[in-house]
Amino acid sequence: MGFELKKYLAEKKQEIEKFIVSYFNPSIIPKILHESVLYSLTAGGKRLRPILCIASYEACDGKKNIVPYATAIEFIHTYSLIHDDLPAMDNDDLRRGKPTNHKVFGEGIAILAGDGLLTEAFTILSNPEYADINPAILLKVINEISKAAGLRGMVAGQAYDLISEGKEPDENIVKFIHSYKTAAMIKASVKSGAILAEASEEKIYHLEVYGQSIGLAFQIIDDILDIEGTTEEMGKPKGSDIERGKMTYPKVFGIEKSKEEARLLIEKALQEIEIFGDKAEPLREIAKFIISRTN
Amino acid sequence: MGFELKKYLAEKKQEIEKFIVSYFNPSIIPKILHESVLYSLTAGGKRLRPILCIASYEACDGKKNIVPYATAIEFIHTYSLIHDDLPAMDNDDLRRGKPTNHKVFGEGIAILAGDGLLTEAFTILSNPEYADINPAILLKVINEISKAAGLRGMVAGQAYDLISEGKEPDENIVKFIHSYKTAAMIKASVKSGAILAEASEEKIYHLEVYGQSIGLAFQIIDDILDIEGTTEEMGKPKGSDIERGKMTYPKVFGIEKSKEEARLLIEKALQEIEIFGDKAEPLREIAKFIISRTN
Repeated sequence: MGFELKKYLAEKKQEIEKFIVSYFNPSIIPKILHESVLYSLTAGGKRLRPILCIASYEACDGKKNIVPYATAIEFIHTYSLIHDDLPAMDNDDLRRGKPTNHKVFGEGIAILAGDGLLTEAFTILSNPEYADINPAILLKVINEISKAAGLRGMVAGQAYDLISEGKEPDENIVKFIHSYKTAAMIKASVKSGAILAEASEEKIYHLEVYGQSIGLAFQIIDDILDIEGTTEEMGKPKGSDIERGKMTYPKVFGIEKSKEEARLLIEKALQEIEIFGDKAEPLREIAKFIISRTN
Repeated sequence: MGFELKKYLAEKKQEIEKFIVSYFNPSIIPKILHESVLYSLTAGGKRLRPILCIASYEACDGKKNIVPYATAIEFIHTYSLIHDDLPAMDNDDLRRGKPTNHKVFGEGIAILAGDGLLTEAFTILSNPEYADINPAILLKVINEISKAAGLRGMVAGQAYDLISEGKEPDENIVKFIHSYKTAAMIKASVKSGAILAEASEEKIYHLEVYGQSIGLAFQIIDDILDIEGTTEEMGKPKGSDIERGKMTYPKVFGIEKSKEEARLLIEKALQEIEIFGDKAEPLREIAKFIISRTN
């Protein structure tokens, strides 16, 4: 029987969500923070980033249970969504079909929940006991992830995204935004799996290019779905990018060219992981799944 | 010639600020983020936390240049101030006599600058090359600092601080707030220095108690200065705690009992570091300096 993506994703998702619940139970944090953090962590995400980390680890023959470390990446992703939805940022009332964190808990607690999740990710990543990982390896992972998330990564992309609202379409700026805001953390997720597996430099390199490529494709497709998708599919009102004057791929290049670019990026990603053979089947199917969202 | 605290603090401050400037120059981050981050990092703080880290390291016979790691703690402190000043939190217009970050750069960039500084701290702490530190030691430091800063530390304290505004005075709550909001990171700063020096468990324990004690005293005195200090001394309007209905030590225990408590905490801190002899002279003088602010 061949590889079944749906089953694979469901299994990994379950492991990740089991860790999330066990991590915060029994609660040792103030009740309102606990509720706020769990609200966003369990709001039904696809868990794409931690699953990519695990799939990459397995493609590199990793045998340990690295779910805690992979989930730390989901903490960082969740923090970024909470802060991104704030009135001073994207000012979104809905996320995945539910009221955004600050709508439920207030802005102050939402800011703190985001801060706390970001910080807690590093508490997890700095604990070698989850899977008896070499400290030098964990330090490398922390370095990769923090660079991808920080002032030279995701935060830089968010800043450009914010200050580019309402500006004239600009190819370089939209590429910068997509590369930093979205692709950096997706690439770091894939790369972290390879680092945790102590893979060769060559394998790490190929997985990095794969991660960067699917990361860019993912954001381009997200931009396209904002135009072509339904509110139900998106979990938030369609057309919100246009309404806010966001610098998106379709705005700069048009829909057809954007779709073509996404297809080329996925093709490139698939080529990069050919050397892994069957072991990269999950990574391959995830890449195909990403492009299938626009079909 | 005896130990001169003023000279010691000035020297350490200079080293820390030299690292801050060199770290962000040449800039590899978007201009507005760069400006926002440097604005708050160079706004004239006392650098108490990184100096405590270095002084503790030196008390434990550490000989390397750990300024980068100590400065990472200042990044975390600075992020917490930027977020704390936001309209949804303390809504402060002034900090150290200057307009707060969001007043100058807008709320969105201020949130991102804080996020970026917090993340960047872990990029620094996960780089063993600054001082050839054993990866296992750095991992321990990251674990300590992230726990002290996160959902079970500073962020928890901030959340309680926020939700306790306007509530009836409560001894347990004010102690919780002070312990988590302020003392946790001061304790972690001192403890990190000792961990970096690979000090014995016994020494680490004494320095932890020292850090916890001066941390609590520091916050109690801050509360007192909000009532008795001048706007000039504080760098922000006096009485702002009262105006916001903050749960402060003087509000719960009265001014005289608060002063007495601060004195006792500093006495306790001084006893804890007796075993270090002359090597703890800077830590001793810093403790005395903290209590001198109310004299």
